[in-house]
Amino acid sequence: MLPTSIIARKRDGYELTADEIRFIVQGIVDDSIPDYQLSAWAMAVLCRGMSVAEIATLTDCMLSSGRRLRRSTERLRVDKHSTGGLGDKVSLILAPLLACVGLDVPMLSGRGLGITGGTLDKLEAYPGFRCNLDETEIERQLQNIGCVITGTTEHIAPADRKLYLLRDVTATVPSIGLITGSIMSKKLAANLDALVLDVKFGSGAFMQEFEDAQRLMKSLVETGQRMGLTTRAVLSDMNQPLGRMVGNACEANEAVIVLQGGGPSDVRTLTLRLGAELCLAVGLHDSLEESQAALARHLDSGEAFERFQQMIACQGGLFQAQLPLAPGAEVAAPTSGWISSVDGQLLGHAVIEMGGGRQRKDSAIDHSVGLEMLVRIGDSVEAGQPLCRIFAHNETDRGLASAMISQALQISSQPVEPLSLLPAAEFNKFP
Amino acid sequence: MLPTSIIARKRDGYELTADEIRFIVQGIVDDSIPDYQLSAWAMAVLCRGMSVAEIATLTDCMLSSGRRLRRSTERLRVDKHSTGGLGDKVSLILAPLLACVGLDVPMLSGRGLGITGGTLDKLEAYPGFRCNLDETEIERQLQNIGCVITGTTEHIAPADRKLYLLRDVTATVPSIGLITGSIMSKKLAANLDALVLDVKFGSGAFMQEFEDAQRLMKSLVETGQRMGLTTRAVLSDMNQPLGRMVGNACEANEAVIVLQGGGPSDVRTLTLRLGAELCLAVGLHDSLEESQAALARHLDSGEAFERFQQMIACQGGLFQAQLPLAPGAEVAAPTSGWISSVDGQLLGHAVIEMGGGRQRKDSAIDHSVGLEMLVRIGDSVEAGQPLCRIFAHNETDRGLASAMISQALQISSQPVEPLSLLPAAEFNKFP
Repeated sequence: MLPTSIIARKRDGYELTADEIRFIVQGIVDDSIPDYQLSAWAMAVLCRGMSVAEIATLTDCMLSSGRRLRRSTERLRVDKHSTGGLGDKVSLILAPLLACVGLDVPMLSGRGLGITGGTLDKLEAYPGFRCNLDETEIERQLQNIGCVITGTTEHIAPADRKLYLLRDVTATVPSIGLITGSIMSKKLAANLDALVLDVKFGSGAFMQEFEDAQRLMKSLVETGQRMGLTTRAVLSDMNQPLGRMVGNACEANEAVIVLQGGGPSDVRTLTLRLGAELCLAVGLHDSLEESQAALARHLDSGEAFERFQQMIACQGGLFQAQLPLAPGAEVAAPTSGWISSVDGQLLGHAVIEMGGGRQRKDSAIDHSVGLEMLVRIGDSVEAGQPLCRIFAHNETDRGLASAMISQALQISSQPVEPLSLLPAAEFNKFP
Repeated sequence: MLPTSIIARKRDGYELTADEIRFIVQGIVDDSIPDYQLSAWAMAVLCRGMSVAEIATLTDCMLSSGRRLRRSTERLRVDKHSTGGLGDKVSLILAPLLACVGLDVPMLSGRGLGITGGTLDKLEAYPGFRCNLDETEIERQLQNIGCVITGTTEHIAPADRKLYLLRDVTATVPSIGLITGSIMSKKLAANLDALVLDVKFGSGAFMQEFEDAQRLMKSLVETGQRMGLTTRAVLSDMNQPLGRMVGNACEANEAVIVLQGGGPSDVRTLTLRLGAELCLAVGLHDSLEESQAALARHLDSGEAFERFQQMIACQGGLFQAQLPLAPGAEVAAPTSGWISSVDGQLLGHAVIEMGGGRQRKDSAIDHSVGLEMLVRIGDSVEAGQPLCRIFAHNETDRGLASAMISQALQISSQPVEPLSLLPAAEFNKFP
């Protein structure tokens, strides 16, 4: 079997056979297919698409390229995955919250990618926090406190790790087939009883178009179900950041406030909704309303907050109620009007420019920089009113970020409707 | 400017700016863009296509990546380029033939690629023949005998050479934009007065579909004309080999017979037609008929043959009237009927399997192996009648080639119309 003939078949729009897909994945694992052929293959897959059968085979091969986590407790095991969005700190809240209702949550997370921050980067804002637990440590922590947030180990879906790095630098990330294979192979390796997916759409998401996000959601859920994993999904709006805070320590601080029953309502709402979907999926409650209320009590009682502090401590981190941030400065509205749109790509790049994300794979991250959004789409503003607070260490960064934010926030002279975080139920239900 | 954002724009179907295309070509030349990004870009170009403006810019940038040949004679300068086909030995005949009518022919040719043989490989069947002339040697030979067939020098379109190697191993060859840029940048660098293109379609060509070949022809001619080069084109049928002989020494031997006024009529017809298009383009004659008759006289008189021998000698080759071939053996028809189709890909691979083409970039070529086709589509055959003669050195090669040829030649129980080499005039005229 020749890599070029497999690439050519996908280029010409044919469905690849299981043997051909296995050959490609094996070639990734044993380095027998060079990067320049893999990237051509990935672009052909992106342009021509993959069938349901191809995606299932890809997921299966990526899963089989590594090991699965063992089960060492009697508890049901769940996880949430988000396709990535600006200001999305839900994982930090949801993992300890679900542990409070007696579920195990082995959350294998990632680093920041493109404009979206990484859950691991946010947690590393706590000095000493370790994200490289091995499989024994993961099991032990689940036994002890029921939740862990760590990086994938080298034994989990190694084919995905290599392919992902290549996709990131070849503009082949937004392929429904490749995204599905990547996410689902890792989640299947975690040996879950149920998975919920938060599929983002809008200016701050991979899938900027609602229809693309719907197609991705369908692919993810179908693949999970075909592989025997109970999978649910929620579509959520990423046309503006989730919550107020964007940046690593900024977002950890906001998560801590939500963990204590406070914080922005959109963060709380989305967290409860995703958690409730999981509780329903494993039969813990009978309705979304009942489940959301039960979970909310664990936020308001402080139990989830306590579990979060245990998780930080178990992984070697030094918890602080509010992490220190870089000095703040405000960006003022140039005119009066209504906030009409927020360019999530620009906001994300502003945080990266200040050092809060990676410009190169090996860049160090400054956890203390970030943004606080003081307005949301639909808000009316007066000229001179603060729109955003920038946490930056020097005048250069502050000036650059300020210019980018001014460009990212559009003000209309006409009233604008606020966005709803979760689209109407008929669009947001699968299957 | 970031390579990934340029790749992403092409992936999403946008037209690239001149600056973006220049950035890519510059990145090829100075090795600043890694192969895995170039191959993703090439696949995105193949899948999404290129506009006329993009192709013109690409051609211009590839041309500008190197030097142009100088003009050191007063004579008009022409060339022919074929998009590649099985048994196509026209270049060997046409270069000396056009020199006979007072035109200069600086033919910068290539090696075998995929199933199609390379003009340089065929000429190297003459012991000692040199294909690596430098620019001074090219000019000197044009002054002396008016024709030269050699490889492109390292200074001619270096961006094309690098990109071509990568395309060959990433299944990104059959892109109209990339083919056009590759061919036209080299031909423009030769500083021609007119160019004729032989655009092949059918089972033995890159563009197996007639409509794809038409689109490629249009792109090539438009690009040449936009760059100020008088460009004509002919579409020709490659559903069966051109002439009888396939293989390096085999094809040189057949070319020599045509150069002496004999040989298969399709080879002679196509050679005269392509030559006549060039003579008309530079104003040497007034009609195709007049021009073809004039060129035919130079074949029949032996002048073109003499010029060919001079060219071989000038480039260090030892001419032989007929080069030695490997021992021949015949493949017989399994049933009676009419030859209905010939799989050019399989025939080409049979020659490669015997060592007549490259399986890897660095393979040595055995010039003495090949095939002689004894039938053409539409011929009636009796069971047991020889269909093809195989020139092979051992029983293994002969057995493998024999099986491939039996599979490649389909025999129908119903009469089959012969193919016409040149499609009806209305399809074969541009503009």
